[in-house]
Amino acid sequence: MQKHTDFDRMVTITPDSDIIASRHGGRAKCLQRLIRLALPVPKSVALSFAEVRDIAAGNEPNLGPLVAEFPAHNLLIVRPSSEDADWGGPGAIPNIGMCDATHAVLVPRLGQAAADALYARFVQTYAVQVARLDPDLFEFGKAPDRQRIDEMLAAYAAEMEETFPSQMAHQLAGVLRSMARSWDGPTARLLRQAKGAPPDAGLGLVVQVMALGIGRPETDECGAGVIQFVSSETGEAQVTGRYLSQSQGREALTAGAGVLFLSHDARGPSLEDICPGIIDELREYGDRCRVHLREEMQIEFTIDGGALAVHDAVRVHRSARAGVQIAVALAEAGVIAHDEAIMRVPTGSLPALLHRQVDPASPRDLVATGIGASPGAATGRLVFSSREAQEAAAREESCILVRRETSPDDVRGMHAAAGVLTVRGGLTSHAAVIARGLGLPCVVGASAIEIDRRASRLTTTGGRQFRAGDLVTIDGSSGEVLAGAATLFEPAPEGALNKVLDWADGYRDIGVRANADMPADARVARTFKAEGIGLCRTEHMFFEPGRLNAMREAIFTDNAEDRAAALDQLLAVQRADFASLFRVMKGKPVCMRLLDPPLHEFLPSGRDGLQDLAQSLDLSLADVTQRVASLAEFNPMLGMRGVRLGITVPEIYDMQARAIFEATAEVGETVPEIMIPLVSAKREVELVRARIDAVAAAVRRETGIDFDYRLGVMVETPRAALRANEIAQAVSFLSFGTNDLTQMTYGLSRDDAGRFMGIYVAQGVFPEDPFLQLDVDGVGELLRIGAARGRETRADITLSVCGEHGGDPDSIAFCRQAGFDYVSCSPFRVPLARLAAAQLAIAEPRDA
Amino acid sequence: MQKHTDFDRMVTITPDSDIIASRHGGRAKCLQRLIRLALPVPKSVALSFAEVRDIAAGNEPNLGPLVAEFPAHNLLIVRPSSEDADWGGPGAIPNIGMCDATHAVLVPRLGQAAADALYARFVQTYAVQVARLDPDLFEFGKAPDRQRIDEMLAAYAAEMEETFPSQMAHQLAGVLRSMARSWDGPTARLLRQAKGAPPDAGLGLVVQVMALGIGRPETDECGAGVIQFVSSETGEAQVTGRYLSQSQGREALTAGAGVLFLSHDARGPSLEDICPGIIDELREYGDRCRVHLREEMQIEFTIDGGALAVHDAVRVHRSARAGVQIAVALAEAGVIAHDEAIMRVPTGSLPALLHRQVDPASPRDLVATGIGASPGAATGRLVFSSREAQEAAAREESCILVRRETSPDDVRGMHAAAGVLTVRGGLTSHAAVIARGLGLPCVVGASAIEIDRRASRLTTTGGRQFRAGDLVTIDGSSGEVLAGAATLFEPAPEGALNKVLDWADGYRDIGVRANADMPADARVARTFKAEGIGLCRTEHMFFEPGRLNAMREAIFTDNAEDRAAALDQLLAVQRADFASLFRVMKGKPVCMRLLDPPLHEFLPSGRDGLQDLAQSLDLSLADVTQRVASLAEFNPMLGMRGVRLGITVPEIYDMQARAIFEATAEVGETVPEIMIPLVSAKREVELVRARIDAVAAAVRRETGIDFDYRLGVMVETPRAALRANEIAQAVSFLSFGTNDLTQMTYGLSRDDAGRFMGIYVAQGVFPEDPFLQLDVDGVGELLRIGAARGRETRADITLSVCGEHGGDPDSIAFCRQAGFDYVSCSPFRVPLARLAAAQLAIAEPRDA
Repeated sequence: MQKHTDFDRMVTITPDSDIIASRHGGRAKCLQRLIRLALPVPKSVALSFAEVRDIAAGNEPNLGPLVAEFPAHNLLIVRPSSEDADWGGPGAIPNIGMCDATHAVLVPRLGQAAADALYARFVQTYAVQVARLDPDLFEFGKAPDRQRIDEMLAAYAAEMEETFPSQMAHQLAGVLRSMARSWDGPTARLLRQAKGAPPDAGLGLVVQVMALGIGRPETDECGAGVIQFVSSETGEAQVTGRYLSQSQGREALTAGAGVLFLSHDARGPSLEDICPGIIDELREYGDRCRVHLREEMQIEFTIDGGALAVHDAVRVHRSARAGVQIAVALAEAGVIAHDEAIMRVPTGSLPALLHRQVDPASPRDLVATGIGASPGAATGRLVFSSREAQEAAAREESCILVRRETSPDDVRGMHAAAGVLTVRGGLTSHAAVIARGLGLPCVVGASAIEIDRRASRLTTTGGRQFRAGDLVTIDGSSGEVLAGAATLFEPAPEGALNKVLDWADGYRDIGVRANADMPADARVARTFKAEGIGLCRTEHMFFEPGRLNAMREAIFTDNAEDRAAALDQLLAVQRADFASLFRVMKGKPVCMRLLDPPLHEFLPSGRDGLQDLAQSLDLSLADVTQRVASLAEFNPMLGMRGVRLGITVPEIYDMQARAIFEATAEVGETVPEIMIPLVSAKREVELVRARIDAVAAAVRRETGIDFDYRLGVMVETPRAALRANEIAQAVSFLSFGTNDLTQMTYGLSRDDAGRFMGIYVAQGVFPEDPFLQLDVDGVGELLRIGAARGRETRADITLSVCGEHGGDPDSIAFCRQAGFDYVSCSPFRVPLARLAAAQLAIAEPRDA
Repeated sequence: MQKHTDFDRMVTITPDSDIIASRHGGRAKCLQRLIRLALPVPKSVALSFAEVRDIAAGNEPNLGPLVAEFPAHNLLIVRPSSEDADWGGPGAIPNIGMCDATHAVLVPRLGQAAADALYARFVQTYAVQVARLDPDLFEFGKAPDRQRIDEMLAAYAAEMEETFPSQMAHQLAGVLRSMARSWDGPTARLLRQAKGAPPDAGLGLVVQVMALGIGRPETDECGAGVIQFVSSETGEAQVTGRYLSQSQGREALTAGAGVLFLSHDARGPSLEDICPGIIDELREYGDRCRVHLREEMQIEFTIDGGALAVHDAVRVHRSARAGVQIAVALAEAGVIAHDEAIMRVPTGSLPALLHRQVDPASPRDLVATGIGASPGAATGRLVFSSREAQEAAAREESCILVRRETSPDDVRGMHAAAGVLTVRGGLTSHAAVIARGLGLPCVVGASAIEIDRRASRLTTTGGRQFRAGDLVTIDGSSGEVLAGAATLFEPAPEGALNKVLDWADGYRDIGVRANADMPADARVARTFKAEGIGLCRTEHMFFEPGRLNAMREAIFTDNAEDRAAALDQLLAVQRADFASLFRVMKGKPVCMRLLDPPLHEFLPSGRDGLQDLAQSLDLSLADVTQRVASLAEFNPMLGMRGVRLGITVPEIYDMQARAIFEATAEVGETVPEIMIPLVSAKREVELVRARIDAVAAAVRRETGIDFDYRLGVMVETPRAALRANEIAQAVSFLSFGTNDLTQMTYGLSRDDAGRFMGIYVAQGVFPEDPFLQLDVDGVGELLRIGAARGRETRADITLSVCGEHGGDPDSIAFCRQAGFDYVSCSPFRVPLARLAAAQLAIAEPRDA
C-alpha cells in the first residue's frame, strides 16, 4: 500500500518503504528497523503527521484500502508514534476489529473465554477512550460472558443513540480521530512542550496486526512481556524483564501475581522454564538490535500460540551509571566508535557518578528542604561554628556545619566539615560557591529552619529541635535535610567513566585545568586529570589557622619592620605550599593569582572574634575594634583589593612572588604562572611586573638557579576587557574571571543577588542566573572583545576562563568558539568539562 | 641687519621684519606689534631660539655687526623672550655698554651723579648676574661716586683675574651667554614645565636701546613706570599704574617712597600733574593697543628728558571677574566678536565668580588644611550632627557641619548647613559629591583634626580645641579651615558673566540641563538657565524629616495593606514636590529617576538611631535591629537597588509614577520624563513600562486629563551599554550615569576609592581620578558603544550624560563628539557647562 491517499501518508512498513522519523514518528521508524532485522513484527502501516493532522481537523480518511491491507478477522492495534518517544502521546488502543462476526471466528480458535474477554475489552476501551462514555457503564469482572457483552453493547447504543460500530473501518475511523484529537489537547501540549517539543510537533500513528497474547491456556502458551539484556542500574550484561501468560501489551510490567522471570531464576518460575526456545530467539533478537541498531533495546514481545511476535522495541531505560557502562561496552565491542560513546554520555549525568547519593529506596525522615547547591550526600553530627567543625575534624568525626549564611571566616570550617547547610542564600551564595569548589555536599536556603547559635540549637518551623551532636544527613542534589543517618550509595566505580573521559581527551580541542588553592585540591585535580591549575587563589592559604595570625599581624602592624617580620613568617608557609603544589602537579602548569580579597576579610567579625584577636595580638579591644572598623568598606567587592593592594602595600606581592620563585628554584621543572587580579589599567601591570621581575632576579642570584616565569592578568573588570590590547603588551596570558566580570557587567553582587534572583529568573527577567550560566550577550561580548584585542596585540597570548563558568558546557562552547586556549573550573567539575569539550569538538569539528 | 649669521637668527625688529613668536619669542613679537602701531619703541634686535641655543652651547656669536646696528654710546638692555610669557626666563640685564668711555660721554649729558649711578649699577649687575661674583663685593649706597666704581672694577679684576670688559661686544657676549645658559638650569626647566612648557621650549632674547630714565632731575623729567586703563580687580575702565622719577624698568612697581599715581588722584601727587601731555600720549597708545592688539595692555614706559619711550607692553593681569568684564567690554566696543569673547573666559575661572571667597588680604587663623572639595567660603558655628545642623537652620543660624565622613543619613544636615567639613574622604567622597551638587562649600580629608562626637569637640593635632557653637570659616577652594569669621567677598556681580553665557548659548550645539532633586535646586537651575532637569533623584525627597518615617514604615511593614498606606502618605508629598518642580521649570523638560538606592539607606545606623526608630514605629529594639540587619548588604552598590527594587517591590514605582502623573495632570504643560535606574536587561524595562503605562492610563481615566510621558533608562551598568540596541526598543531616551558606570567599569567603589586613589594618581596608574574626569578610553568606549547601538535601533533616541562628569569640559567635549543631545550636571556647574560647550562649538564647528 504505497501512496494510498497521498505520497507517504499511509505506508505499509517494509524494509524498503519510505518511513521517516520526522514524518511518521520514532516508533514507525523503529518498527521498520526491526523489520529490516527480520524480527517477527506483525504487519504495520504508518500514518504520517500530515495524515493525523488532517484527521484531527475532521477530514474523514478513506479507510477502505487501509483495512484491505490486513487479513480479514485479524485484530488491529493503533499505537502513537511521535518524533521523540519522550514527548508522550495517546495510549495505544488494542483489539480493533472485534465484532460479532470476528468473535464468531475467534471462538473456535481461542475458545469462548478468550474470545469473550477480547470482545469485552474492546467494547470497554472503545466506549471509554474513543466515545468518552462513563467508565462505570463498561465495567466487567474477570471473565465476562456474552450477556455482559450484550449489556455493554446496549449501553453504548443507548448513550450514543447508535449501535456499536461493527465494521473495522468504522472502528478504525473512531480510534484514529480520537487519538489524533487527544494530541491537540492543552494538557498533552503543555506536557510535551515541557519536555522540549516544538509547538508544531506532529503525531504519527501505527496500525498494526495484533499478536493476541490470549488464547487457550491449556494448549499453546500465550502471553506478553518485555526483555532486555543489560541491567538498567549498572549497565552490566544481565537478562532482565517480566512475562505474564494470557496478557496483552505491557500488562506484565504492572501485574502482581503470575508474573514470570525470563531466564532461569532461583526466585521463582521463568519463561525459560516453559519455552526455552523463545528465550534463545529473544537473545538472538537482542544481539541483532545491539549490533544493527547500535543500542541496548528493551523488546516488547507477545507469544501467540507458542509463536513469538515482536511488536515494539525501545531504548533500555538506564541510570547515569548504566548509561556510561552501556556506551563503553558498545564501543569496546566495536559496535559504536569512541566518539559516539562520548556523545552518548550526557554531561548532566556526571555529578551523580562522582558523588555519594542517598539510596532512593531507604526511608527518609525529612526535616526541611532547601536548594541543592553542591551535589552529593553526607551524614554527620550537627555543628554550629567553624571552630566546632575543626574540632570535630580533629576527632575524625564527620560533621555537618550549619550556618545562617557563610562568610570567608567559615572557609576553614567548611574544609573540616562533611557537608554544609545554610538557612539563607541561593545557588550562587558564598556557601554554594565554596562548597562546589571543595566538592562538598551543600544545601542552602533552607528557610524552614531557624538556628540559635548560642544555644547550639536548630528548630524547624514544625517545631522539631536538633542540637549540636545530633546526626543529620543532607542531600546536596535534592536539597533535602534528613534526620539521622540515611543509607548512602557510594559513587559508581569509575572504570567505564574514566575510559570515556580518556577517549574524550583525544577529541577535545580546548584545554581543561582545575581551580585548586591547596595541595589537597591539586591532588583531586590530578586524579581527575586536569591539565594544570588554572587558578590558585593564594589567599586561601592564609586561612589556615596558624597562618591567619601572621596575616593579621601584617595587617595590623603600623611600621614596615614589623610587617616585614610577619610577612617573613607567611613567606615560609607559602613557599612550602607552592613547592607542594608544584610537586603534585609534576611540571604541569600552575597559575597563581596574587592576593585578591580586601584585607578586612582576614579580620574577625563579632565581639568574640575581636576579643580573641586583641588577646593574641596583645592590643586593647578598643584599638583592634577601631582598626577593624577603619578597614571596613562600603562595597568591598569594589574596594581596596587585588592589584590595588599590590600597588599600595607592595610588600605583600613581593612576598608572594618570592615564595613562588623560591619554590620554583627548589622543585624545578615548573614554569610558574603569576596572575595579577582586578586590573583595570595597563600601568598597574607595569608597576607590579617591575617589582616581580626584580624579585625574580634576586631569587635567581641568591639561589644560583635559573628559571622562567609567565606573568598574566585576570580580566575581571569591564575596563580590562576593553583595554586588553594595551594590557596584552605587558603580559603573556589573560584569564577571564567570569564571576567578577559578571558582577561588574551587571552591577550585581553575587552575595546580594539571592534576594531577588529567584524572582528575576521566575519572571524571565534573566533567562538564567548569570552566575551559573555565562551571559553570552553581555559578559560574553566583553570576553569576545577582550580576546580579540588581546590577540591583536599578541597573537600567541594564552586566553582562558577561570571561575565557575569554566565547568558549564554552554560556557565551554562559548569559550571554544571565541578561541580560548583553556577553561579552568573546580576539580570536581573537571570530568564534566573534559566530556563537554570533547562533545563540542565532535559535534562541530574545527577547521584544520 | 637681516640675516646676520644665518637667516633670521638676529633680526632688527621693524614692521616688516620676519619675527615669529615660535622662533623669537612672545616679547619680540609683541615689540614688533607695538612698532607697527607706531609706538615710540627704542631700536630692538631679536635673537632667535636657535641662536640662543648655540650661544648656550658655547658658540661665540659674531657680535660686531650687532653692535654696529646701534648708535655709539647708547646703552643697551637684553630682555628674555620665551614663547609664552608664563614660562619665565632670566631677568633682563640693563645698561650694557657702560665703560669709562661711555661714562665720559654721559657725564655732560646727564650729569655726574646719573652717569656714576648708571656705571655703578651696570658693574654691579654684570659682576653678580653674569660673572656670578659675591654680591657683597658690589654693594653701593644711594649715590655711588667714582671711587666706589673704581673699587668695584678692582674687585672684579681681582676675582676674575681679568679686567672688567670695556667693549660693548665683550659685555654683550657675557650677558647673552649668561642668560642663554640660565634657561637650561634645572630649576628654570622644572618651573616652566610645571606651567606646561614642552621640554624643548626655546628662549629668544631681545637686545634693545635703553631709555635711561635717569638724568638731571633739576631740568627734564626722567623716570619709568607702568600704566593700564582697566582695573585688574574689576575689569572696569580705570587708569591705574605707578611712576617713579629717576628710575629704570619696573622699579616703580616695588618702590616705596616717591611713587606717583598716574592720573590726577586725591591720594597724592601724580604724573599727570607733572607731565599732562605724557598721560594723554599714553592714553592714545592704550587705545591703539586695545583696538589693534584687541586686548587691554599694561604699557611699560620710560620718560627720558621729557620724551616718552615705550619699551614693552604685556596683557593686563586680571582677576577672573576682570577677565570676563574686559572680554565683554571689548566685544561690546566691537573690538572682538562675541565668539572671541567667549573663548577668552577660561572655564576654570567660573567657580571664583559664582561663590563667596575669603578675602585674600584678611588675616587668617589657620586651624587645619584639607582638600577643597566644593568651592566657596562659609562661616558658621560648629555642629557635629545633622540634627544639630537642622536645629541651627531652624534658628536661622549659619552652621558648619563637621563629620568624620558623611553618609546618606547626613544629607538632611548638609541641606541645613552653610558648609561641610570632614576628617576623611577625597574629592569624590560622599560629602564632596553631595556638597558640589548643593553648591555648598566643603572641605574634606582634614586629617589633622579629630572629632569626638559625644563630647561635641574638635581637636587639632596641635592641640587646639573647638566646641559646638564655636565660629569657624571653611574655604572650599583652598581647603583651609580658619578659626573665627574671616572676611568674605561676595560673588562678583553677574552682569558681564551673564552676557557671555547668553552669547555662549547662541553658539553651543549640545544641551545643558541641571541635576535637581528638590524645588529649591530647580530654582537655582532656572537662575543659571539650565534647559531642563536632566536628573531628579526622587529618593532625595524622602530624606526630608517628616517623610523619612513614612518611608521607614513602608520598608518595615510586612503586609501589603500597611505598605500601601505608608506609600499613600508618600504619594501626597511626592506629588506636591513634582508639581512644584514642574511649576518652577515652566514646561521645560524634567527627567525623574525612580527610586534608586538600596532600602537600607533609609534606615538608621548606630544604637541611638535604632532606638529612635523603634520608638517611633512602636516596635521592640530587637525587632528593629534584626530587620535593619536583614536589609544589610555585602555590596550595596551592587545589590537590591534601582530597577531590582522596582520589580521585586513594584508598589514603590507604582506610587512614584502615580505621583508624577497626578502632578502632570495638575500642572499641565509638562511632558514628564521617567527614568529607570540600574537596568541591565531589556526585560526589566518591559516589566516596569507595563506597570507605568497602566498607572498612566488609570490617572488619565481618573482625572479625565490627557498627557504624554517619555520613558527612558539610566545606563549605569556596562551591560546596559552593551545591550543598548535591545533596550532602545523599549524607551525614548538613554541617559548615561557615568558615576556608576565608572564604578562598574573599573570595579571601583567611589566611596572606597579614597584609600588608594591618591597613590594611584600620584604614581600615574590613572592619569586622573576617573570620577572627576571621564575615562575616555574605558568608560568612554562603553558610552560610544551604547550611543551607537541605541541610535541604530532608534535614530531619534535622546542621548545624554548625567552625573558629575556632565559639568567637566573634557567630558562635555567627549559627549559632543559622541553625538549626545545634552549633558546634565549640578546646577552650580551649569554656567561652566554652557561656556565650555560654546567654546567647543566655536573651536571645532560641526559639519552642517
